Amino acid sequence: MSPEQRLAAMDLRLPDLRPVAGRYRPWVRHGDLLFLSGQGAQPHVGRLGADFDVAQGRLAARDCMLNLLAQTRAAAGSLERVRQVVKVLGFVRCTPEFTDTPAVLDGASELLVHVFGDRGEHARSAIGVASLPRGFAVEIELVVALDAESV
Amino acid sequence: MSPEQRLAAMDLRLPDLRPVAGRYRPWVRHGDLLFLSGQGAQPHVGRLGADFDVAQGRLAARDCMLNLLAQTRAAAGSLERVRQVVKVLGFVRCTPEFTDTPAVLDGASELLVHVFGDRGEHARSAIGVASLPRGFAVEIELVVALDAESV
Amino acid sequence: MSPEQRLAAMDLRLPDLRPVAGRYRPWVRHGDLLFLSGQGAQPHVGRLGADFDVAQGRLAARDCMLNLLAQTRAAAGSLERVRQVVKVLGFVRCTPEFTDTPAVLDGASELLVHVFGDRGEHARSAIGVASLPRGFAVEIELVVALDAESV
Repeated sequence: MSPEQRLAAMDLRLPDLRPVAGRYRPWVRHGDLLFLSGQGAQPHVGRLGADFDVAQGRLAARDCMLNLLAQTRAAAGSLERVRQVVKVLGFVRCTPEFTDTPAVLDGASELLVHVFGDRGEHARSAIGVASLPRGFAVEIELVVALDAESV
Repeated sequence: MSPEQRLAAMDLRLPDLRPVAGRYRPWVRHGDLLFLSGQGAQPHVGRLGADFDVAQGRLAARDCMLNLLAQTRAAAGSLERVRQVVKVLGFVRCTPEFTDTPAVLDGASELLVHVFGDRGEHARSAIGVASLPRGFAVEIELVVALDAESV
Repeated sequence: MSPEQRLAAMDLRLPDLRPVAGRYRPWVRHGDLLFLSGQGAQPHVGRLGADFDVAQGRLAARDCMLNLLAQTRAAAGSLERVRQVVKVLGFVRCTPEFTDTPAVLDGASELLVHVFGDRGEHARSAIGVASLPRGFAVEIELVVALDAESV
């Protein structure tokens, strides 16, 4: 199955591309590396530890990753051109007492592994922060390596 | 016009290099990529949503970027050797209620596009945090691709 | 002296590899770059500016770096294959009033320079955040360049 067929088997599909929130681009390619700008996801506006529990945060993280994969497809032409997911940097908007940021970000990480298999295995950091653009509960940025022939 | 001529046309110039705040270097080059350490900017000490409004935050972000461009010139010899700005990671010191971090960071992003044109178009993430070194309102780190012949 | 001999001369040694905290890998290699996932360190759970002072935070940062170097050895076979430390991104869990994040992260940066000499000189950003996984006081992620022959 292709990555998009695996998404469909999970009843998921790539969303429309979100407009950027300022004077930047959703991605820049350098050699075979694709650097993707941070993505939040509607309608997940709130704070972990106050408005959202871990299960809701996992959905927010998954939807951020769907936005990132939609941008990846736009940049590379197809998700089949992803050779390896390299790096996830995830930020969770939360109260100072909330410490379960890794469980929240697993909502995004599990999607990557489901969709890409071994090529979806990635390095990651999980950080809890005071504030995110538009009040999003989660924001994730991504670095992906593309097949050389697609560069 | 060269990048520095465009700066001059905006009545801006590259500042003196700031001393680093600890046991690290202001940049490291790897291949044709230049990884720049996070830069704050004097005198912009305070918090968005409390001490500073968005207009003041934009100036802080612009001045962080001027510090980064001064380091870029020191590393590459000239801003004309910048082939592409790749990635901006911006942190805004703010109250938990403040969600306008993208508008603040546009102060830095707009400068990049004014100075470099298409080569200044970049990926970006904008994060709101509790605290930054020395109480700076904004801190930005940068990845830039240099011309191969200048490496 | 080798990097590990320098560690031993400081009465330090590489710790056992910590299990990852979720659905990600401790590192991913791309070309000659090694991207390492964020590492915290036991038993350093608390907040700078409240539970921990700078001296305690420096120890936490040093122990995060020891965890990162243990992963680097696991990835590369030996610390002698580190050609250059490229980039440190350090997060300090702290009160909004705490601004001494660079001094905390120097606990990690000084270790790198002691162990690797010039090859340990790195770019760095220091950020203060509301929350970190498991309540760790410090979390650090790392990018390292390896010798081409070890890739």
